[in-house]
Amino acid sequence: MTTALNKIAVIGGGSWGTALALAAARAGREVTLWARDAETIAAINANKQNPKYLPGIEWTEQITATGILKHAVSDADALLLVTPAQTTRAMTEAIKPFLKPATPIVLCAKGIEQSTGQLLSEVIKSVAPDAIPAALSGPSFAHDVAKGLPTAVTIAAEDGAVADQLSAALASNSFRPYATDDLIGVQIGGALKNVLAIACGAAVGYGLGASAQAALTARGFAELTRLGMALNAKSETLTGLSGLGDLVLTCSSTQSRNFAFGLKIGQGRTPEELVAPGQKLAEGAHSANIAVALAAEHGVDMPIAKTVSQIVAGKIDVAQALSDLMTRPLKRETHP
Amino acid sequence: MTTALNKIAVIGGGSWGTALALAAARAGREVTLWARDAETIAAINANKQNPKYLPGIEWTEQITATGILKHAVSDADALLLVTPAQTTRAMTEAIKPFLKPATPIVLCAKGIEQSTGQLLSEVIKSVAPDAIPAALSGPSFAHDVAKGLPTAVTIAAEDGAVADQLSAALASNSFRPYATDDLIGVQIGGALKNVLAIACGAAVGYGLGASAQAALTARGFAELTRLGMALNAKSETLTGLSGLGDLVLTCSSTQSRNFAFGLKIGQGRTPEELVAPGQKLAEGAHSANIAVALAAEHGVDMPIAKTVSQIVAGKIDVAQALSDLMTRPLKRETHP
Repeated sequence: MTTALNKIAVIGGGSWGTALALAAARAGREVTLWARDAETIAAINANKQNPKYLPGIEWTEQITATGILKHAVSDADALLLVTPAQTTRAMTEAIKPFLKPATPIVLCAKGIEQSTGQLLSEVIKSVAPDAIPAALSGPSFAHDVAKGLPTAVTIAAEDGAVADQLSAALASNSFRPYATDDLIGVQIGGALKNVLAIACGAAVGYGLGASAQAALTARGFAELTRLGMALNAKSETLTGLSGLGDLVLTCSSTQSRNFAFGLKIGQGRTPEELVAPGQKLAEGAHSANIAVALAAEHGVDMPIAKTVSQIVAGKIDVAQALSDLMTRPLKRETHP
Repeated sequence: MTTALNKIAVIGGGSWGTALALAAARAGREVTLWARDAETIAAINANKQNPKYLPGIEWTEQITATGILKHAVSDADALLLVTPAQTTRAMTEAIKPFLKPATPIVLCAKGIEQSTGQLLSEVIKSVAPDAIPAALSGPSFAHDVAKGLPTAVTIAAEDGAVADQLSAALASNSFRPYATDDLIGVQIGGALKNVLAIACGAAVGYGLGASAQAALTARGFAELTRLGMALNAKSETLTGLSGLGDLVLTCSSTQSRNFAFGLKIGQGRTPEELVAPGQKLAEGAHSANIAVALAAEHGVDMPIAKTVSQIVAGKIDVAQALSDLMTRPLKRETHP
């Protein structure tokens, strides 16, 4: 397929960055991947594998890895930014000097900037106003994508034509992007699903069973939808791949870091133990407080997000909190 | 809690009937359970267990089992009908002579009558016009409910006050019903989730991975919503426990008969092999054809339901069908 966006720079050499670089290569793109880690760069260039983050997976596609940001960025028609959500501001600052004008920067991490409460697209706008923020999100595990198992995601940009171009540039038989102009909706879904996954993990860890897990997922989705609508997201986005689809995957799998974090909390570990030196806090633990603040600002009821923020802060007993969530007063489902 | 509905008759001694009888007993109700099987009746009355359908579970609550329909029904303030969906007409005929006027009959099986295409509530209305059809549905496994693990469900009746009464009659710390007046929405969600679970099971059986499973769940929910809205269901019901909640549970668990049916299809078994003599066809296999017919009638696009109906009929190659579903032409998510 011919495309206006042929040269793709992937910023980040973790499992998701490597998987997306492979997806772009399979779509026929010329791919340069920037990574921090010298061993990862060498392994990608010399052996077509990333043993640190994608152990056991080898590929035949061509990906050029580099440790020099300028080499990856200066020639790129589009960037995939695949570094942790809370590093988005710093990475955009670092990238900015090398960007061609009007280059799409596709956010591939999910979250809200903790220090400002901004969506990541707002961070890009404020740091690099000449770039075009976009977002890629959906139910997708790096290993599935790397192995070429069929995966469908959403790609959003405020200008739907840009989203269409990005989708066309990354589409292959195994990787199927759907385009939307709802950049806000995609980011809200991505950030909140991490919060809700902590609640589902905690319920499972505490032994509440699959029925409770499914009930929390559905009632969590209702919260996500309420907040999304208050922030002018489109309902089709919230029920789509990046919203519901990703929520379902994240709330049902120990492969998800946020679910796994909740699972350990439910099994009796404390949040402090889980954020020992060198360990990263699950992204949903950051986003929970921001979600609660946004909910309060917009007069939206979000009992599950609130519970997660209290659990993360160590303010409530997990068993009591889960029991309270499942046994809220009887009420009409249609009048929440 | 005092309630207008104290005497509850549960019709059906399978795992779900027994679990719901226990839920009602825990809510403080006087419960009589009708079962066909003499051994089951004896085990419930003498040993407080149902080894045939709930092996390994014993209880302390009081449930009276009987094999005589009149003894269960004639005194009941409300009935829970927990027999297979396709037997609803015959069971309602059998029950009808013993019913007090205006007794709620709560449908606890999910499906659409295959011979007529009617919702089960319409079957009750046509057979027993003096009774009040209601429905109980939600993410709930019989074992979870029987063991007293927290479970939330939806209870629907056209008159919301009846739904409120039924909810109050069955509510306990571990079993939490939410009331709604959207009787159609609850039944549509219940019937369609079985169809979609077959598709998810087939994807997993064929080895497509968790990302594809989640994508099918989300896009299946979009189909469910489109058909539900065309049939005047409320969107809150479709995104609620009986719709999305039950869909999530059914599409992610081998405990679900429909998911398990799809799983075997994906692994290469044929539909004929799976409906050997003495084996029941998964309910979703019945409902798929009806869903496709309803979709055509209302001009609604349902590619996943259509694929399931073709798979069940043995008309298409499963591998090709799944690949087609995952790689439909690129399009905007917001303009489906």
